[in-house]
Amino acid sequence: MTHNKPKFAVIGGGSWATAIAKMLCENQEQIAWYMRNEVALEEIRENAHNPNYLSSVEFDVEQLFLTNNINEAVEYADFVIFAIPSAFLSRELDKLTADISDKIVVSAVKGIIPETGLIVGEHFCQTYQLDREQIAVIAGPCHAEEVALERLSYLTIASASETNAQQIADCLKSHYIKVKTTDDVLGVEYTSMLKNIYAVACGMAHGLGYGDNFQAVLMSNAIREMKKFIKKVHKMKRTITGSEYLGDLLVTGYSLFSRNRMFGNMVGKGYTVKSAQMEMNMVAEGYYATKSAYLMNEKLGAKTPIINAVYDILYNNKEPKKVFKKLTDKLN
Amino acid sequence: MTHNKPKFAVIGGGSWATAIAKMLCENQEQIAWYMRNEVALEEIRENAHNPNYLSSVEFDVEQLFLTNNINEAVEYADFVIFAIPSAFLSRELDKLTADISDKIVVSAVKGIIPETGLIVGEHFCQTYQLDREQIAVIAGPCHAEEVALERLSYLTIASASETNAQQIADCLKSHYIKVKTTDDVLGVEYTSMLKNIYAVACGMAHGLGYGDNFQAVLMSNAIREMKKFIKKVHKMKRTITGSEYLGDLLVTGYSLFSRNRMFGNMVGKGYTVKSAQMEMNMVAEGYYATKSAYLMNEKLGAKTPIINAVYDILYNNKEPKKVFKKLTDKLN
Repeated sequence: MTHNKPKFAVIGGGSWATAIAKMLCENQEQIAWYMRNEVALEEIRENAHNPNYLSSVEFDVEQLFLTNNINEAVEYADFVIFAIPSAFLSRELDKLTADISDKIVVSAVKGIIPETGLIVGEHFCQTYQLDREQIAVIAGPCHAEEVALERLSYLTIASASETNAQQIADCLKSHYIKVKTTDDVLGVEYTSMLKNIYAVACGMAHGLGYGDNFQAVLMSNAIREMKKFIKKVHKMKRTITGSEYLGDLLVTGYSLFSRNRMFGNMVGKGYTVKSAQMEMNMVAEGYYATKSAYLMNEKLGAKTPIINAVYDILYNNKEPKKVFKKLTDKLN
Repeated sequence: MTHNKPKFAVIGGGSWATAIAKMLCENQEQIAWYMRNEVALEEIRENAHNPNYLSSVEFDVEQLFLTNNINEAVEYADFVIFAIPSAFLSRELDKLTADISDKIVVSAVKGIIPETGLIVGEHFCQTYQLDREQIAVIAGPCHAEEVALERLSYLTIASASETNAQQIADCLKSHYIKVKTTDDVLGVEYTSMLKNIYAVACGMAHGLGYGDNFQAVLMSNAIREMKKFIKKVHKMKRTITGSEYLGDLLVTGYSLFSRNRMFGNMVGKGYTVKSAQMEMNMVAEGYYATKSAYLMNEKLGAKTPIINAVYDILYNNKEPKKVFKKLTDKLN
């Protein structure tokens, strides 16, 4: 693990995976890139663009070891970056036969694994007996779309191993990407997951007709709620107003393009949860995150009125309008 | 000052003044409302709408004691709410001959008085020898436009006198307005003023082509910078992620309609400061606030890279692109 030139694999074919591949290609001679979709792989090989996500990004195909065999990608790399929706992670890992016991596993998933209710780092530690030092997390605030446009963005790499964090940081930074490191792995990974719930809440509020004044109150309460939740998970001194916490919440909560916000908006406007999901042709990360966070918090015992409200609407079939009316009395 | 039914006067004819008049009319039998513009007063008398600001709001004219004599308004009231741009406050106060020594002065100005560099509360204490208990501040997060639409909004009333703060709160709250009180008068008044500088910075960033990822980083740094600044002004335990601090920053920084953001946006796009001001036909509060905050901070000594950057652009004629390039290295 002390190569001068560590090798990276990106697992996933979506927009965040594509953005990460782009960032790595600024520094690496070659990277491995795995995705399930063979047609997309073929198109990248031929046209140097991912046809489905961030299609404006042009790759130098010679830099890419493209494969639709996850084991080839994992075997190639020292650092394996997982950037697939949490709902599909188990299914992909089922294919894994390659030995990952000496790999650094980097989560760029921003969600919780529905089958286990674990965040990705925890999942790897428990399932593959990896050391905590072998886990890292890539955190925002960062929309993939703006990476495609080379608009200045800031990333945070979290790991218990400062060396690993720094190596990842060095391979991602460029003239449009600044990267810092932290040892608060749990804090940033839970932020990545919880912020999606708050983005769903923002969407619901908007769908119900609440305005910008209320959104500002909702965000202020969300960051305090998130702080309490994370503190129960792992108590340490953290500045919750840091970009990796508050910034990540804001970039998602205020984004009109966030799928979580869009999903919440539809539910707020009166779609059933099922029909909103069908209409969007996908399941927003925040949907799973809500259940996991709610269940976790039954043990943690943090005061989380916003998470509870979203849970009541999504899982207890409660009426959004009534739930939010009550919620507004609990915010300040 | 212990009337059962305290009397209010609103000083100003702009959108925030109009919103405050509307909120008070939900609870008060009558209020005094002063504005300079006689034509507007006449229109309100005849048509029950302020023709120039929030013109959709319909008043019950019988509730309004309308006057263009500031002294009549002040004499009428126990609580005098000033809601005019800070740049015009001195000019209005020059007309004041009525005795205000036993009045409660409520600032809704959200800015600094350019002639003295003082926030409004301080200005009244120093100029009229009022007690600190006679000062109160109305703080957001609250766009006047959403009050007009009766969209749920949260206000914070700050005063060293809990009784006065509560009396004001009671007279403002309604089915669409929730109000809390605090004793952090300086904290919320400086927030009201500093947030405008950060809104100018957001506008500049946008004008220069920075995107949402950067805006989230800028906001996260802004709240930390604001916290440091305010701590130097008045050290006390405050939760900076509260709605009256962070919420107020967000509602302004993320608003596309904020005049401060618009002004910054033009400067970022290459307008000179003068031409941006002429184009907008007004001076944004953040313009004055930047100078005052910068000069104050020469004594306070807080680390304020964002305020310094905005100051360099607005007052030292530095090139926005270069200043922001340097600033991005100081943020994290």
